[in-house]
Amino acid sequence: MTLFERLVQDERPAWDRYVDHEFVRRLGDGTLPAACYRRYLVQDWLFLGEFARTTALAAVKADTLEDVAASAATVTALIEIEMPLHVRTCAGWGIDEAALAATPPAVETLAYTGFVLARGQGGDVLDLLVALAPCVLGYGAIGRALAASASPDTPYRAWIDAYAGPDYAAVASAAERMLERAWLRRGGPARLADLRATFRTACRLEAAFWQMGLDGGGEFGGA
Amino acid sequence: MTLFERLVQDERPAWDRYVDHEFVRRLGDGTLPAACYRRYLVQDWLFLGEFARTTALAAVKADTLEDVAASAATVTALIEIEMPLHVRTCAGWGIDEAALAATPPAVETLAYTGFVLARGQGGDVLDLLVALAPCVLGYGAIGRALAASASPDTPYRAWIDAYAGPDYAAVASAAERMLERAWLRRGGPARLADLRATFRTACRLEAAFWQMGLDGGGEFGGA
Amino acid sequence: MTLFERLVQDERPAWDRYVDHEFVRRLGDGTLPAACYRRYLVQDWLFLGEFARTTALAAVKADTLEDVAASAATVTALIEIEMPLHVRTCAGWGIDEAALAATPPAVETLAYTGFVLARGQGGDVLDLLVALAPCVLGYGAIGRALAASASPDTPYRAWIDAYAGPDYAAVASAAERMLERAWLRRGGPARLADLRATFRTACRLEAAFWQMGLDGGGEFGGA
Amino acid sequence: MTLFERLVQDERPAWDRYVDHEFVRRLGDGTLPAACYRRYLVQDWLFLGEFARTTALAAVKADTLEDVAASAATVTALIEIEMPLHVRTCAGWGIDEAALAATPPAVETLAYTGFVLARGQGGDVLDLLVALAPCVLGYGAIGRALAASASPDTPYRAWIDAYAGPDYAAVASAAERMLERAWLRRGGPARLADLRATFRTACRLEAAFWQMGLDGGGEFGGA
Repeated sequence: MTLFERLVQDERPAWDRYVDHEFVRRLGDGTLPAACYRRYLVQDWLFLGEFARTTALAAVKADTLEDVAASAATVTALIEIEMPLHVRTCAGWGIDEAALAATPPAVETLAYTGFVLARGQGGDVLDLLVALAPCVLGYGAIGRALAASASPDTPYRAWIDAYAGPDYAAVASAAERMLERAWLRRGGPARLADLRATFRTACRLEAAFWQMGLDGGGEFGGA
Repeated sequence: MTLFERLVQDERPAWDRYVDHEFVRRLGDGTLPAACYRRYLVQDWLFLGEFARTTALAAVKADTLEDVAASAATVTALIEIEMPLHVRTCAGWGIDEAALAATPPAVETLAYTGFVLARGQGGDVLDLLVALAPCVLGYGAIGRALAASASPDTPYRAWIDAYAGPDYAAVASAAERMLERAWLRRGGPARLADLRATFRTACRLEAAFWQMGLDGGGEFGGA
Repeated sequence: MTLFERLVQDERPAWDRYVDHEFVRRLGDGTLPAACYRRYLVQDWLFLGEFARTTALAAVKADTLEDVAASAATVTALIEIEMPLHVRTCAGWGIDEAALAATPPAVETLAYTGFVLARGQGGDVLDLLVALAPCVLGYGAIGRALAASASPDTPYRAWIDAYAGPDYAAVASAAERMLERAWLRRGGPARLADLRATFRTACRLEAAFWQMGLDGGGEFGGA
Repeated sequence: MTLFERLVQDERPAWDRYVDHEFVRRLGDGTLPAACYRRYLVQDWLFLGEFARTTALAAVKADTLEDVAASAATVTALIEIEMPLHVRTCAGWGIDEAALAATPPAVETLAYTGFVLARGQGGDVLDLLVALAPCVLGYGAIGRALAASASPDTPYRAWIDAYAGPDYAAVASAAERMLERAWLRRGGPARLADLRATFRTACRLEAAFWQMGLDGGGEFGGA
């Protein structure tokens, strides 16, 4: 069993509240209001910018040059491939990149990116990669599950296909292998309790991120 | 005008939404429900633990040994003086320190502490101290304002007196002087826009923290 | 005048001791002993690995996504293009990559990479880029100067051409523009004294690195 | 066996080259030239300033509030007790604090402090504390050994007594216990190879620091 598989097994309630969140189910059955999806996607663009920095921190802290290079390549892919996809989608709604960059980050966005940076700064690369795992690996799991179950009429088919497809599967698989390398090099039974707590909190913050999309606004404003 | 005075002037709306938040007003007039105050205080204890680490980061990044030492002394005071006050208050409610430590941090707690660490890691000591300023200096401003206006019958008199008193005033004044030293050494007109954005976000996150107390629970659970 | 031009002008003695070091002159006139060059190149390979991490830290701390991406691309180029050149050269001497990786870093290697990380951790991206500037921009200046003056018979022609050529000129020019962007966004007269001190120390450590090559051994052993 | 005892046993050659360095022996037999001792002590003052920041980083990264507080208290002791002792000694030589602060750090000084910060930034608190251990615990071992063997006439008796005495023994014992706590919480067999490499490099850098004192000058200048 890989560390990731073990964390999912040991923190199943938090994991399920994240991957089976109402937002996810409504992506699948097509009942998610467009405003909620827009709110989510705009905040996800802000999230990805911070996620790129966090991945650069994983490069700083990697134990091998191979992993420094792999993390740097992920930073490039996030900024040059994944974020422009969001920009194009948002452009279709009349939201240009300047408007995206000017959107105040939601408290849920700041909470997750801040938490990952805090674990990366406070701990080592293993702590950091565990904090990132629910995002990278969870999206793959959600994509696969929705690909199997989603309504043929959902307007969110492109999102589902992106995370269910082979390109994303390769990204997720590489991330799981990097996490496992860190575990084999730096892990051990003594660390499991703290790593579980990190994983659990990251799942909670992912679920809060979905909820922010569903709530679609509140004090920190809609997109 | 000090940098702090200028930031308050330039970001007045965000500042006012924080220092005049409904939670603050109800501390003063005594209508804040006890459960909201408890929710706040438990999370504030968790916040203070992370705030102590953040202050240690300010010691790492200080430009002078005088400021390294001053920040280290603040870390000690937070852990040995301020946090035990919360522990004693919570003990009166039947919540012991183990229960405090086992409380999951609210998303708002993680958001603010994560944001401060992110600014401290991403920027220099000036970015970090600006991110901390709404907390340290805002509590002093709130304490003084409530001391002048609060109902004589509010059950939150001890809280008000703590932040309105001369001991806290000395802490706040020292923090403002350290911030000003960082500004004189590292500041300049080019940095103001970014520093204002940092200050504004920190004020938003302080207001969100009050709101978390008012809401008293939600997904991330009450104390 | 760019910040870099100003730093060179203001710290001319330290700069000259670095770019006109005996090691450099002997690269040009061809009198550098092969053992000294080998010692230098092996340590430079170790240096580049840490330099890649330091550049990843610049990605973490960059103020714009453009600069996050540019720094990440530099990390990739260092590990996938520049370091393999060293590996190939060393292979010609019978030193394979495992032997490179097993070489203890010289105290001078640790000093420079540690200093850059310390400035990057202690300060902001401007402090970090100033600490890196003597390396990135100095090698370009040295390459150009040697291209104009070197003996036609020097065996170190390939090294000179690499740093005098248009590819490296583009790298150096991009680094100077990134430094200037950081200066325009975060700089000001108040910061000059500290930035000059950082630049001066980095030049001293570059000169010490050349000297380590010349000395070719000592307590920390030759390659 | 504690982790520290194990590291000493496993890296005995590097440890012995540090604790039995010629500089140490000549402290004991009194033949160390005064100029070498001065060179060492001035650089040690610079070292302690960076060591204080490094200890603050240990506070940032500690796993428990108890250890955050203990590290902060050490920062305070370093700046308010240990560094002033050096200042007083140097004042007796006509070197005031401004002259100390203006002394360029030796490459050996930068190498060791930079290395510790790099391990602290790259790894977790266990990596950091292992990098610090040769300094904190080695000085205690050296002090005790010299107290038993030193010539009654050595002029360096005060230095020996300081590190052989009960106050320093308490400091060293607390540091060893904190290291052991980190090991129990974060350690395991998988990490030993990397921790040994960190310990070995730190011992090498301590030996290089003694050698810098013996050499008493060189490129980076005497005090």
